[in-house]
Amino acid sequence: MTDSSTPGPSGSGSPTDRSWWGWGTVDQALSDAECTALGKLIPGAADTPLPVPDVPALALPKVRVRPPSALAPLMSSAPRDRASHTYGKAYRDVLRALAGDVSAAPDQVVRPRTEQHVIDVLDWAAEADVAVVPYGAGSSVVGGVEYRADARHGVVSLDLSALDQVLEIDRVSRAARIQAGALGPDLEAQLRPYGLTLRHFPQSFEFSTLGGWLATRAGGHYATLFTHIDDLVESLRVVTPVGINESLRLPGSGAGPSPDRLFLGSEGTLGVITEAWMRLQERPRHKASATVVFDDFHAAVEAVRAVSQSGLHPANCRLLDPGEAALAGVAQDGESVLVLGVESAHAPVDARLTELLALARDHGGTPMSGGPDGGDTAARTWRSAFLRMPYLRDALARMSVVTETFETACTWDRAPELYETVRGRLTEVVREVTGAVGTVNCRFTHVYADGPAPYFTVIAPGRRGAEVAMWDEIKSAAMDLLHDLGATVTHHHAVGRDHRPGYDRQRPEPFALALGAAKRALDPAGILNPGVLIDPTAPAFNDSKPAAFSDPTTVG
Amino acid sequence: MTDSSTPGPSGSGSPTDRSWWGWGTVDQALSDAECTALGKLIPGAADTPLPVPDVPALALPKVRVRPPSALAPLMSSAPRDRASHTYGKAYRDVLRALAGDVSAAPDQVVRPRTEQHVIDVLDWAAEADVAVVPYGAGSSVVGGVEYRADARHGVVSLDLSALDQVLEIDRVSRAARIQAGALGPDLEAQLRPYGLTLRHFPQSFEFSTLGGWLATRAGGHYATLFTHIDDLVESLRVVTPVGINESLRLPGSGAGPSPDRLFLGSEGTLGVITEAWMRLQERPRHKASATVVFDDFHAAVEAVRAVSQSGLHPANCRLLDPGEAALAGVAQDGESVLVLGVESAHAPVDARLTELLALARDHGGTPMSGGPDGGDTAARTWRSAFLRMPYLRDALARMSVVTETFETACTWDRAPELYETVRGRLTEVVREVTGAVGTVNCRFTHVYADGPAPYFTVIAPGRRGAEVAMWDEIKSAAMDLLHDLGATVTHHHAVGRDHRPGYDRQRPEPFALALGAAKRALDPAGILNPGVLIDPTAPAFNDSKPAAFSDPTTVG
Repeated sequence: MTDSSTPGPSGSGSPTDRSWWGWGTVDQALSDAECTALGKLIPGAADTPLPVPDVPALALPKVRVRPPSALAPLMSSAPRDRASHTYGKAYRDVLRALAGDVSAAPDQVVRPRTEQHVIDVLDWAAEADVAVVPYGAGSSVVGGVEYRADARHGVVSLDLSALDQVLEIDRVSRAARIQAGALGPDLEAQLRPYGLTLRHFPQSFEFSTLGGWLATRAGGHYATLFTHIDDLVESLRVVTPVGINESLRLPGSGAGPSPDRLFLGSEGTLGVITEAWMRLQERPRHKASATVVFDDFHAAVEAVRAVSQSGLHPANCRLLDPGEAALAGVAQDGESVLVLGVESAHAPVDARLTELLALARDHGGTPMSGGPDGGDTAARTWRSAFLRMPYLRDALARMSVVTETFETACTWDRAPELYETVRGRLTEVVREVTGAVGTVNCRFTHVYADGPAPYFTVIAPGRRGAEVAMWDEIKSAAMDLLHDLGATVTHHHAVGRDHRPGYDRQRPEPFALALGAAKRALDPAGILNPGVLIDPTAPAFNDSKPAAFSDPTTVG
Repeated sequence: MTDSSTPGPSGSGSPTDRSWWGWGTVDQALSDAECTALGKLIPGAADTPLPVPDVPALALPKVRVRPPSALAPLMSSAPRDRASHTYGKAYRDVLRALAGDVSAAPDQVVRPRTEQHVIDVLDWAAEADVAVVPYGAGSSVVGGVEYRADARHGVVSLDLSALDQVLEIDRVSRAARIQAGALGPDLEAQLRPYGLTLRHFPQSFEFSTLGGWLATRAGGHYATLFTHIDDLVESLRVVTPVGINESLRLPGSGAGPSPDRLFLGSEGTLGVITEAWMRLQERPRHKASATVVFDDFHAAVEAVRAVSQSGLHPANCRLLDPGEAALAGVAQDGESVLVLGVESAHAPVDARLTELLALARDHGGTPMSGGPDGGDTAARTWRSAFLRMPYLRDALARMSVVTETFETACTWDRAPELYETVRGRLTEVVREVTGAVGTVNCRFTHVYADGPAPYFTVIAPGRRGAEVAMWDEIKSAAMDLLHDLGATVTHHHAVGRDHRPGYDRQRPEPFALALGAAKRALDPAGILNPGVLIDPTAPAFNDSKPAAFSDPTTVG
């Protein structure tokens, strides 16, 4: 954290403060002039950036819920707290914030400092009929932290950021007990003195928390093998409205369905994750990376398939299609780029990289650069662009450019069709919706032996005032396409509220019944993140009240 | 399958027939003379083997349930079918069968030939109040296929062995759609022409099915990385009483809690798995293995920990403690033995084996033999003993020797204490229970970066007629020990009915509520495998009927 007092581009707050409306910190956001310059690169973008409203000028709704005296010291209804906890960071969130629409603001932001505080908040909320939206650092891009229902007496945003400690380290088993509110950099800083690392680096790393990663099954650093945070979990501790759910610390188990797997991906609907024992890695001492260029994208896909099925498990294996590679500035026109990386704490990795490059060459790839310890410029260039992207997205939003990212996964047999169909059809949709020619680019973020996880980026000039409506149309079309192609609605961005239409169609109906029943059992008052994943008022949620089990005489 | 007509040692049936009372096929069982010779090796064993009852002489209970006419062609109440489907293959199962106790025999054995048959059976059973016990090949050692309740009008064993086909192969994604009733050798035979393999080889491989592996989260071939069948699942198809649950074929997903993970380990209580898309491997072309001897077991444990945390992912990494190694005939007195194996379909593996052996040497190990392609005699010797073990267990049972195997997992920090405490305390328990000096040996079957999966074998001379009671006491003491040590009640043998006391204490209470609620939602009549995993009559199962959600006005 710097101490600089250079003012941010607009809005209120000191430069290293978190932006209330957009990504990250105020000082990293693009200035008005930078936004305007960026807009000039997109034909059809607005001429001037949307202004950023000052918090004091926002028309926040009346506070309906007053804190009980025991919890009052933890609660805040300060305008900045309420405004910054109204939305996550989806495009539509940023646009609505820029429009000054904070009508869905929580009544209170509550910041527990202990697990007992979390319990007390849930007890009070159930009693007072107040919805509770668990909030890590608010990086959701799927409406995961935004309250949209209105049947409750009010809503509080449960901000877990004060629970940010690494509580215990087991160096023998290479594991640590970590509180859910720890941001990526904070938990890594606490592990570093021990030579250990969680090595989970989502794009949101700086501005997302362990608890958020666990609740949403976040995708991380590793492009193969341990792709989701799920794989790094040894045990979870979850405060549910009916009690604390703590699983044993186990390296593996076969005792019934995994308790942890019910809470991983539950997105705050079944309980509040307060801490977890996480599997750690030793810090890698050997690293090597390389960039491979392909003239033909489908040949590159075949190369990546070969890599994913080779058992070589590269840490990095990102394939950028021509549009994505051009945007990142790492390739010539029409070329696809594969970024490969290997790492180890124990042994040199050069031989493994050589084997990977041989596979790439077999499929027509040309290694361009590479070497040990990050000597690979293209990979570095791409990584820096990668971390900067959310700030650029916000700048594009201010220039009324519609941007949407969505990601999925499918098996290899369907990957070429998925790529072509989504790009082709979505390009048409963008033209229909915006009247302009947009771009639809793709990269593979994670790959498995049986298929890739393609990540699409849509960019098109919008019409001022209609950005959200356009985004909604494009998002909806993307979900329809993925559904028709049998691909998942999300590989690692979660479901939240925005992906519900796709998720509801994808989820097997008996599982919906089981999940709804579990929800009722754990959250009988239905206060936890209503509207995310499952809808308590939907038929599927209520039809599962069986008659037979009400009659004890029929129970075997 | 051979055509030999040499008669089996006793009992009825042709030699390659499955044993109705014990492991495997009749022709592989030890003869009376072999049993007697084996007994002489265990001081205190009986002088003569327990006789094997002939099926016609068994006092099977009256058949309470007659098949409806539509299902009659699928059902059998033949004595041999009923007797062979009464139990799994736990020690107590074998002993009770030898005692002629088949009082828990199912009324009917039903063998669906199509998925529609499965649906029809469940519909009929719910209507007729008949319990349904899904049955793959009956290798459960935890009471998973034995009906113990008596509140129903009857019970059928749902034998899925006719659903044994590989239905579809996707060579591009390396996956296959396989029916749940396929035995290990049968499904491998169908995959072999394509150069592919599931490579899941539990000890029960010959006599267990894909559906059984999935329902019980079986542990397989790989000692590291893809240890459980869970990791090889792309999608599941499950017939539940409320409908078919089919998940998308996906290499990975982050859309809510994993639907498949609810059914993996559900042990037939939530539905009947009828087929699955499974991730396959190419058949390995490069293999190497080696045996390392250690004077000190705890040094060997440290070596295995180093291996598990090295990222080298050996396919085999079995550590035998001195007792286990002596029993398998692969080491001198007091020595521990580590069997290491590496394999790859693509590249030579010798360098990796060399790195593994270096780690073993660093911890005081002495490589004894080894080389490419199964040149390692000790490993071969051990593997052959491993596959023969269940037959020996049956022979010991006939000599009234009490044998019990149980397996667990814990983190590395607790592994030495677990090993010493379990061996020490259980040796005392065995003396208290049997009055004799028994042996308690241990091997690690699977290892993870954060801990091992220790597998214990107890052998002690019992008292004729009291074998089951003695076994129950030892089993109960073992479960208590594991619970006190914070280790799981099972790493890959499942819960069934025998592990319920340990599982009920281990499972977090809120998860128990969620699982009970899911059970009621999917199996409203409570017909599926009653008593396994959850008890429909237990308070935890019934206390989760929330009041709030019955009142729609409070639903947000």
